[in-house]
Amino acid sequence: MAYELYYWDGLQGRGEFVRLALEEARADYVEIARGPEDEGLGTSAMMAVLGSRSEPHPPFAPPFLKDGDLIVPQTANILLYLGPKLGLLPRDEGLRYVANGLQLTIADMVTEAHDTHHPLASSLYYEDQKEAAKTRASDFIDHRIPKFMRYFERVLRQNPEGDQHLVGNALTYVDLSMFQLIDGLRYAFPKATKRFDEQYPRLAALYQAVMTRPNIAAYLASDRRLPHNEQCIFRHYPELDKASR
Amino acid sequence: MAYELYYWDGLQGRGEFVRLALEEARADYVEIARGPEDEGLGTSAMMAVLGSRSEPHPPFAPPFLKDGDLIVPQTANILLYLGPKLGLLPRDEGLRYVANGLQLTIADMVTEAHDTHHPLASSLYYEDQKEAAKTRASDFIDHRIPKFMRYFERVLRQNPEGDQHLVGNALTYVDLSMFQLIDGLRYAFPKATKRFDEQYPRLAALYQAVMTRPNIAAYLASDRRLPHNEQCIFRHYPELDKASR
Repeated sequence: MAYELYYWDGLQGRGEFVRLALEEARADYVEIARGPEDEGLGTSAMMAVLGSRSEPHPPFAPPFLKDGDLIVPQTANILLYLGPKLGLLPRDEGLRYVANGLQLTIADMVTEAHDTHHPLASSLYYEDQKEAAKTRASDFIDHRIPKFMRYFERVLRQNPEGDQHLVGNALTYVDLSMFQLIDGLRYAFPKATKRFDEQYPRLAALYQAVMTRPNIAAYLASDRRLPHNEQCIFRHYPELDKASR
Repeated sequence: MAYELYYWDGLQGRGEFVRLALEEARADYVEIARGPEDEGLGTSAMMAVLGSRSEPHPPFAPPFLKDGDLIVPQTANILLYLGPKLGLLPRDEGLRYVANGLQLTIADMVTEAHDTHHPLASSLYYEDQKEAAKTRASDFIDHRIPKFMRYFERVLRQNPEGDQHLVGNALTYVDLSMFQLIDGLRYAFPKATKRFDEQYPRLAALYQAVMTRPNIAAYLASDRRLPHNEQCIFRHYPELDKASR
């Protein structure tokens, strides 16, 4: 049976981290909210699950995955669930916790990237928090991007199994998520990430390696890959971007 | 061998979610950063691990757990690792993903609670972002506390195994973490949480049930439990509090 992926239509968002794993493994999956309403799919089908008063384990927010009767919510949790099934997690149990820890650190940075354009409240328009956004984005570029990226570069450098992968000696979903994180940062902050390749050479190599994997390259060229846009986590607002120090 | 817990000394913070699980299970653990420097412990021992250039899998930030050679970072990941060992996670594999999903949703709310007093940048003083903090805290009280808490109340109500526990029919670390989340919110926002017991009766009952468990009660009365304070995630700044709508 196909996996059912539930995520907002029209943007990459957090759903994209799950899509990249499913696409790399060429897994059979259905995008519920992108399906036609007259076939019982679409956003209303997703909202029905979110608002269900009978579901034994209701999710809080998209993305969530349905595998048979089981609903698995939260991006990192979905990837932890899918990892062994898709061959994208090491067999070693200890390394699985290393992978999950890295994925949660990526998730933390994703939240911070979102908050650069919505520091005061998700319920307010960007235009109504633009000045606060400038302060937060400036701090993100000056302090947070370097702190996170130096760390991830160091994880590659110190990986005892080589600097090609963040965990172990083979591709995991953490590598795929790192590609997506870097891709989003490059889109949102082209000035701040301009020297990225020289600042973080191992991460840059990983980014290229993921992008050119046959299944990922085919996905990125397909219409299943939506373009980055300003409904997403990673938004390109030129007034929030600046060169890194 | 004792578990080694690494977290900042002087505050409950994210380390507290791990402590509650260890204390409930009466597990043998050492607080590295709270130990004496002249015995090789203390904050500098923690910083040495964080800054290590040879550690195979360096953590990004506290809290992290060391179990033998394995370093497990990220609060929810530590709890997922400890859960089966401490008897605080269901045996059913599907329910483990349900538990982890709930724990990550708790973690999201913890981050939002932190950002009420630091919406612009962690690197700036609270005093330098007080006006922005008022806007963010007001939105947190009006929109985010109700959204999260109604959801968690609904999780209890819809749990097919009864409304005593968030997952399954026995205590898990998710219940312990929910106690800590509510306790932190009550400390930080006494006005906003004043009607909590009538608004969220099942969560209030869970809070009481956890607090009066013998091992938890003994821990809370011990000097191992630090008081809430304004170095922590949950800070009581009266100017950020107001009655809920």
